[in-house]
Amino acid sequence: MAHINLQNDLPGIRGPMAFRPETAEPLNLLAEILLRDDDNALSRGERELIGTYVSYLNDCFFCQNVHSALAGHYLQCDIQQIDAIKNNFSSSPISGKMKSLLAIAASVQKGGKHVTATQIEAAKNNGATDREVHDTVLIAAAFCMFNRYVDGLATWAPNDRELYVERAKWRAEEGYAKVDVYK
Amino acid sequence: MAHINLQNDLPGIRGPMAFRPETAEPLNLLAEILLRDDDNALSRGERELIGTYVSYLNDCFFCQNVHSALAGHYLQCDIQQIDAIKNNFSSSPISGKMKSLLAIAASVQKGGKHVTATQIEAAKNNGATDREVHDTVLIAAAFCMFNRYVDGLATWAPNDRELYVERAKWRAEEGYAKVDVYK
Repeated sequence: MAHINLQNDLPGIRGPMAFRPETAEPLNLLAEILLRDDDNALSRGERELIGTYVSYLNDCFFCQNVHSALAGHYLQCDIQQIDAIKNNFSSSPISGKMKSLLAIAASVQKGGKHVTATQIEAAKNNGATDREVHDTVLIAAAFCMFNRYVDGLATWAPNDRELYVERAKWRAEEGYAKVDVYK
Repeated sequence: MAHINLQNDLPGIRGPMAFRPETAEPLNLLAEILLRDDDNALSRGERELIGTYVSYLNDCFFCQNVHSALAGHYLQCDIQQIDAIKNNFSSSPISGKMKSLLAIAASVQKGGKHVTATQIEAAKNNGATDREVHDTVLIAAAFCMFNRYVDGLATWAPNDRELYVERAKWRAEEGYAKVDVYK
């Protein structure tokens, strides 16, 4: 049971978003621009993977499953393959650039000051641009917010991971900004 | 020096916001609604104090000073008094409700799951409404994002704390959403 009466039985972040639509609007807009906007050299799948990885590090079941499913949808791989990346990205079949960006994201999850010049240099040597580094840091920081919002209010989440996979197709189509939080 | 070339010499969060105005817009809108909107039982000063305290726990010099100065401005006290609250809020002359909300904010800073039912009950016993608890959790979560954004990119910040105090009057007047990030 959630820590407060959310006046709805929506799962995860959708509960507090429906409870407080005024703050839901900029939160959804931020997710839309960061994760879904086409004007980005990082693919939607790569950006969802960064969010998934940070949610995994923060142990947020709802966000981890929502964004694992979206990453899998965009990257055309299954949840088990996304799990394998989360569990050990350095030995996974992703690009060197993505590996170095996930390392930066992991440092951001611990705290901003954990990001090192060496990590930034590695990302740049792997072809990451300043904007890709910027977006990686902001995506990782934003998920540190989303994860805390979801778990700090003790929202509930469906246990069946398959439900997240089914919903991901619809979410990929609809995006974040147009979400009717009351549904 | 910042980890990336921000193409400007603005301090703190204003550097990356000017670098990437597309994401600055929802970030500023979120700050405006959460910290400044009049439709809130928590005063602007109380909300700024929550943000200040989380920034202090995250050891983010820029955010801590910007929001300390704003909290002081709204609560009509000086920086030393805000410092005293940050350093030991439980013995400070703030309300029982604010003490229990700051305790929740401190748990959110560690991670969402650190918030306990006992902390929520204490806040409610001290008169906090569901919406005040919601906003406290989201303000704390949002500062975990802002702080990581600022420090994860290694932005610079003025050392002179008096500059933040002077600027706070202007920021209190202007708000967050109307900020011209290029200035």
